[in-house]
Amino acid sequence: MFDTLAILGTGLIGSSVLRAARERGLARRFQAWDLRPENALACERAGWADIVCPTGEQAVVGADLVVIAAPTDRVAPLVEQIAPHLKPGALVTDVGSTKGAAVRLAHAAMPAGRHYVGAHPMAGSEKNGPAASSADLFLDRVCFVTPLAGRTDPDATERVIRFWSALGSRVVIRTPDEHDEIVAHVSHLPHALAVVLALTLAEKPSDWRNQAGGGLRDTTRIAGGDPEIWRAIFMENRDELIRALDMADDRLQVLKKALAAGDEASVRSQLVRARDWRAGVPTP
Amino acid sequence: MFDTLAILGTGLIGSSVLRAARERGLARRFQAWDLRPENALACERAGWADIVCPTGEQAVVGADLVVIAAPTDRVAPLVEQIAPHLKPGALVTDVGSTKGAAVRLAHAAMPAGRHYVGAHPMAGSEKNGPAASSADLFLDRVCFVTPLAGRTDPDATERVIRFWSALGSRVVIRTPDEHDEIVAHVSHLPHALAVVLALTLAEKPSDWRNQAGGGLRDTTRIAGGDPEIWRAIFMENRDELIRALDMADDRLQVLKKALAAGDEASVRSQLVRARDWRAGVPTP
Repeated sequence: MFDTLAILGTGLIGSSVLRAARERGLARRFQAWDLRPENALACERAGWADIVCPTGEQAVVGADLVVIAAPTDRVAPLVEQIAPHLKPGALVTDVGSTKGAAVRLAHAAMPAGRHYVGAHPMAGSEKNGPAASSADLFLDRVCFVTPLAGRTDPDATERVIRFWSALGSRVVIRTPDEHDEIVAHVSHLPHALAVVLALTLAEKPSDWRNQAGGGLRDTTRIAGGDPEIWRAIFMENRDELIRALDMADDRLQVLKKALAAGDEASVRSQLVRARDWRAGVPTP
Repeated sequence: MFDTLAILGTGLIGSSVLRAARERGLARRFQAWDLRPENALACERAGWADIVCPTGEQAVVGADLVVIAAPTDRVAPLVEQIAPHLKPGALVTDVGSTKGAAVRLAHAAMPAGRHYVGAHPMAGSEKNGPAASSADLFLDRVCFVTPLAGRTDPDATERVIRFWSALGSRVVIRTPDEHDEIVAHVSHLPHALAVVLALTLAEKPSDWRNQAGGGLRDTTRIAGGDPEIWRAIFMENRDELIRALDMADDRLQVLKKALAAGDEASVRSQLVRARDWRAGVPTP
């Protein structure tokens, strides 16, 4: 599918792209760079990367496909940094969790004859780094591809769709702004509420954690994610996230009011509505 | 350990107690009753119960141990109903998720020479009924045992501790009020926030559910629980739950304010604190 693939950022997601693409034979040669050299070197030692480069600029030399797997607020700066070093016809994509601002900046930075197409695989873990990576991380997961109407090259979009499909993802096409609204609700809001729950319990005796069932473990799992990655996501998408949090806040006040009033019928109908909605969430 | 064990309520938890106790040889004979006869009959057909009784009163006749596995607001009424039919020396326990009111009422209802000891295994599922039961549901899970100081018979408490330990649970002794405060935070609050999240998303396009990662699935899993069981829990423990929700509400407002102000340092420190707290949650 490609001759040379460059990965900028070989944390959990970047290493997983490397392994997934190599296992599926999507490129012949894999070049890697990471801000933390130990991450890229771990990928070379494991046989996932053919060569580790000391800079992002060097890593993209000769690459047909560049995948930027850095925190979301680093995507546009990295695109600007590597743009002059891309070969003609090179395709650049990313895995950032927010798309609106990044996609516009990345398009503006792209030289003629090189193409950028935003993407965002809905896969991850509360664990970090190449050691937590998996060649099957993207299997059966949604991957958003977010072309800008009238700006993104349709052929480039098609090739990025094929790349993520080949990694096993279910590709969903949305505009960058649609994407940001959706993930604010289905990803960033759950994360924020998991953080709120964790912060609430952090004020209580620490051994209470050991007296819980599976519910606490599952509802707080994502709060264990990398604070730097999530700070960037929250800040980049904060307008949409605040809107989602305001809606959740309204629901919280309604529930509190029903409890305070002892309104059993209202409590029951809220529980029924939540249960019915949850029944539609796909489970593996 | 016991000759005859009676289970009142053979839903998910009751059937699991039946299977777990039978597999571990904790009684010779198992008598079952459920408000829905089909639940108890399913246990008899599966060979978990030796006999199905048409009433709770009949099910406890001759029983050395009675386990009440009914919604939490049904525990005290059932104790009152069966009390006159208990044999001398009979031991009654339950699995209710709230303890303060139930334990006091159950003690008051118990005739001389029969003993009640409250218990609450922190195990469950978003699925219901005997079909979802498991003989290992209580393995390595916390089980609260909640004697009332000066009221609960110490020998009876010791026997209930041994019963839950034999099912594989890690027994934690707390007063009923301590128990209710703890579970308000580690169980009922996570449930309420999962419901709030589900209700928020229920107002959005239904296909957004299909574009989420594992975070949404995990954070909303418990919102799929039985609304009748959770209505009873929320109402029985509503004072403690409202206190916990108020604390979470405070945390939510602090996070919203930091986001609205673009205060990156505050957002980061909240994420770090949540991550650090989550690192201490036991995972299997």
